[in-house]
Amino acid sequence: MKEQLWKNISAVREKSPLVQSITNYVVMNNTANALLAVGASPIMAHAHQEMNDMVSIIGALVVNIGTLDDYWVKSMRMAIAQANLLGKPWVLDPVGSGATPYRNEVLEELLSLRPTILRGNASEILSLASNHSTRTKGVDSTHHSVEAMDAAKVLNQHFGSVVCISGATDIIVSGDRVIRLSNGHPLMARVTGMGCTATALTGAFVAVQPDAPFEATVSAMSLLGVAGELAAENSAGPGSLQVNVLDVLHTLNETEFIKRITIS
Amino acid sequence: MKEQLWKNISAVREKSPLVQSITNYVVMNNTANALLAVGASPIMAHAHQEMNDMVSIIGALVVNIGTLDDYWVKSMRMAIAQANLLGKPWVLDPVGSGATPYRNEVLEELLSLRPTILRGNASEILSLASNHSTRTKGVDSTHHSVEAMDAAKVLNQHFGSVVCISGATDIIVSGDRVIRLSNGHPLMARVTGMGCTATALTGAFVAVQPDAPFEATVSAMSLLGVAGELAAENSAGPGSLQVNVLDVLHTLNETEFIKRITIS
Amino acid sequence: MKEQLWKNISAVREKSPLVQSITNYVVMNNTANALLAVGASPIMAHAHQEMNDMVSIIGALVVNIGTLDDYWVKSMRMAIAQANLLGKPWVLDPVGSGATPYRNEVLEELLSLRPTILRGNASEILSLASNHSTRTKGVDSTHHSVEAMDAAKVLNQHFGSVVCISGATDIIVSGDRVIRLSNGHPLMARVTGMGCTATALTGAFVAVQPDAPFEATVSAMSLLGVAGELAAENSAGPGSLQVNVLDVLHTLNETEFIKRITIS
Repeated sequence: MKEQLWKNISAVREKSPLVQSITNYVVMNNTANALLAVGASPIMAHAHQEMNDMVSIIGALVVNIGTLDDYWVKSMRMAIAQANLLGKPWVLDPVGSGATPYRNEVLEELLSLRPTILRGNASEILSLASNHSTRTKGVDSTHHSVEAMDAAKVLNQHFGSVVCISGATDIIVSGDRVIRLSNGHPLMARVTGMGCTATALTGAFVAVQPDAPFEATVSAMSLLGVAGELAAENSAGPGSLQVNVLDVLHTLNETEFIKRITIS
Repeated sequence: MKEQLWKNISAVREKSPLVQSITNYVVMNNTANALLAVGASPIMAHAHQEMNDMVSIIGALVVNIGTLDDYWVKSMRMAIAQANLLGKPWVLDPVGSGATPYRNEVLEELLSLRPTILRGNASEILSLASNHSTRTKGVDSTHHSVEAMDAAKVLNQHFGSVVCISGATDIIVSGDRVIRLSNGHPLMARVTGMGCTATALTGAFVAVQPDAPFEATVSAMSLLGVAGELAAENSAGPGSLQVNVLDVLHTLNETEFIKRITIS
Repeated sequence: MKEQLWKNISAVREKSPLVQSITNYVVMNNTANALLAVGASPIMAHAHQEMNDMVSIIGALVVNIGTLDDYWVKSMRMAIAQANLLGKPWVLDPVGSGATPYRNEVLEELLSLRPTILRGNASEILSLASNHSTRTKGVDSTHHSVEAMDAAKVLNQHFGSVVCISGATDIIVSGDRVIRLSNGHPLMARVTGMGCTATALTGAFVAVQPDAPFEATVSAMSLLGVAGELAAENSAGPGSLQVNVLDVLHTLNETEFIKRITIS
């Protein structure tokens, strides 16, 4: 398993997939740099006039609603429709799910378009699932991992998406399969957009193995977890961590990766 | 006084206030990271459909017109109206005041909505005040701190805002109270958005003490001044300074803060 | 020649020209920081209401279509018209030329407004030239420097622009003059927006010597090449390189510059 994950990481470095992100303004620079650091080629574009053409040349699409508005939601809709038409994988990051009714409405629509992969934190995943099950209680509930896991399963069943709940332990769910990853470092939560980076990397991995979105998600999350953990050891604070994560994503080797990864 | 300022810094770390920034594209990543580094929780959102809902859940609002346009100005207007309705504090950063008539018109309108706190450099504060007093001469005058201080007093009297003029010496004015802070480092002026970071941190502090905007402003400015000064000592240039400031904002302790702060 | 290039670098530091960038969201923070690091004063603004006023106060305009859409293209059009009216230099960065018909149409229009300087990578320059010559074959051709050079000459003849093809070797073409610069480091290609930084710096240099756009381009490209090369030697990966380039742009001295620059 661990050796296979490393092979997936090597495949991204070798194939340099083209990944389009329709994402929030806050993280664009970092997202592009993280994609470059793992060997992928980032594209950021949102003009309606070029959505169809752009999606035609990419390997995977990443949609992140962090700073959504009408124009950008239409860009997302157009790009997703084209990705679905062409059978290309796409990943959804439901930033701030539960914070406002507008976000919830947009997310409900995007979910109905059946993302290949859905990645959020426990609060976001619980909020999304609360519309589709009485078993989850939404963002006011205490976020035990048991509840979040139930929410992930509900979403996986309803929309067919591989669901990843990121946190101190990342949980990836698809059908009967569940993987837990326990790398990372608490300081990562003090850097903006670490979750968005996770989502973007997932896009790079699923671009390389479009028929194995579960494995792609596990590979991306394990790479970022190990890289964050290693980077944090040499970081004086969140500023250096943001920089060091990019360095480690670029330089990490198989031996170090295999030694560090904690998977179950 | 110094011990009280540190208590305010600790309060932000403990309470982790939710701060919404409607700010410019250039600094969003850094603003979010600076808020995270001091222990606050940043939100960036601007869609008209969610302004009322978002402002309902935050502790303070930060409005920065750096890359303004029609859509964003309407977002600012909506968010400010809701903040005023709910009695929540909001901070205005008048980036580029005086540069174009459009900026001046927008700022005149936003000022009339009576920001809790107003933070700008001497040129911006003088430009804003020139519409409300013949005693200040606008951006063409030589920016002696005496003139800037007069401008701050005019704006404080007209709009009730705590006014902060940032520079080599930061000056904070409210009614009869005036505080001067002399920390910081010249290299900070070579990093984009240091002023925007100051404004954002002021938002975090006033969220925690909404009834004491003067003290909140002094706390935020003293923290950034001390952090910038310490960070500059270990920085090889403006690139590392941007990184190191975030590290120090996160790791600064009371002893170091008390030792360094220069206040009068 | 080398001494003259350093004099141009010193002139930017001394004169601190005002450079307006209408650029993509991904690189705005880094572009502003790079301009500050070389001593220039960055402005980012795009509101239609202030384009004429803003362009009236700047030294040079930089237009970069990376994340273009209708609103921003109109901003570019307005700013360029005003720059041309006032005889101010402007620089075009044709990000993603050839990727979509929308980009190609917009670029064709912007080129017809005759940019003072045009900077892109070989693929972008070849794509632009393919509409104006049968001698170049567009982005599908193998990008030998001979072909790219032909493309640069075609564009220079058609639009009068100084053309810079950046890559392992930067080539700057204007009429009969051709300069090759061989500084830089492969790791620079793993940092997002290094090309955009090159374009922005070109804007700073042409603002200081508006009647010598060829020399300005050579100066900017040589500075970034040398700075990137020096920065890479102390960088553990692309994250630190992004930081270190800013440091070196700010601290580089004449001795080091003259020693390193490789020009022919």
